[in-house]
Amino acid sequence: MGLFSKDIKTMDDLFLHQLGDIYYAERRIVVALPDMVAKAHTPDLKRAFQNHLEETKGHVQRIEQVFEMHGSKPKSVTCPAIDGILKEANEVAGDVDDENVLDAALIAAAQAVEHYEMTRYGTLIAWAKSIGRDDCAQVLQETLAEERHADTLLTKIAESEVNQAAA
Amino acid sequence: MGLFSKDIKTMDDLFLHQLGDIYYAERRIVVALPDMVAKAHTPDLKRAFQNHLEETKGHVQRIEQVFEMHGSKPKSVTCPAIDGILKEANEVAGDVDDENVLDAALIAAAQAVEHYEMTRYGTLIAWAKSIGRDDCAQVLQETLAEERHADTLLTKIAESEVNQAAA
Repeated sequence: MGLFSKDIKTMDDLFLHQLGDIYYAERRIVVALPDMVAKAHTPDLKRAFQNHLEETKGHVQRIEQVFEMHGSKPKSVTCPAIDGILKEANEVAGDVDDENVLDAALIAAAQAVEHYEMTRYGTLIAWAKSIGRDDCAQVLQETLAEERHADTLLTKIAESEVNQAAA
Repeated sequence: MGLFSKDIKTMDDLFLHQLGDIYYAERRIVVALPDMVAKAHTPDLKRAFQNHLEETKGHVQRIEQVFEMHGSKPKSVTCPAIDGILKEANEVAGDVDDENVLDAALIAAAQAVEHYEMTRYGTLIAWAKSIGRDDCAQVLQETLAEERHADTLLTKIAESEVNQAAA
């Protein structure tokens, strides 16, 4: 993702590059989610993806807010990890016939996305605090809470509805 | 990662493909970790990477055990997500000068790996149970516990030693 280019000298540089990484990732997710909404079969899953799409648009705005608080211009940093995870999510849409098995695969793909985001926000919050930017940490914490909630909801839908129907 | 090829008809197929995905990932991590051990500066971090390398070799064996319990031959499924995450981890090794900032970046990269593994094992355990293979779920649960512990330890090292030293 070009995160670790040679101009990273300080924790502040590292923080900004990581912020650019998750900015890229969130914007890619905004583009990817409508297809997952369309492909999901179980109504609760379709609704969860739709709600998370709206939340994700808010996450993009929060990142722009943090860039601004930091006194920097929002800048994306290409991230092959999220590209790979989303590539898998796209592939599932066309490659599993059974609706319930497809839903199980869509949930797995979405939870891989959520976990990537959770680790990146967790890191960003810790780094923001270490450089004395508790204000930035607080904004990022709001998004982390929503990512965790989305992940928990997907587990619930998988275990209470999808997995048994697919098995 | 080829997870969702068109021959995935059932949850059992999906389980086996996902198992091949994490098999590929764990073997890639075994190859990647020695370089992270070598590059880490903080003694506790170096030790944590070294210990996790030994654990990861055990994870590979457990996956082979689960394939065997299932009556299948171990088979890797290429996964661009882990390739992308590890590419970032390699890049950091040569691209940050300051030792403490490098340690912070190494921890972030390793936690992205851990989170990828946690989501995949979590999914595999749920799917194993749904297809009546609680025996497979139990073996995979042992690895998930070790991944979670490794992640928690990295957070502790970051917050108690690395981040403040780097800031």
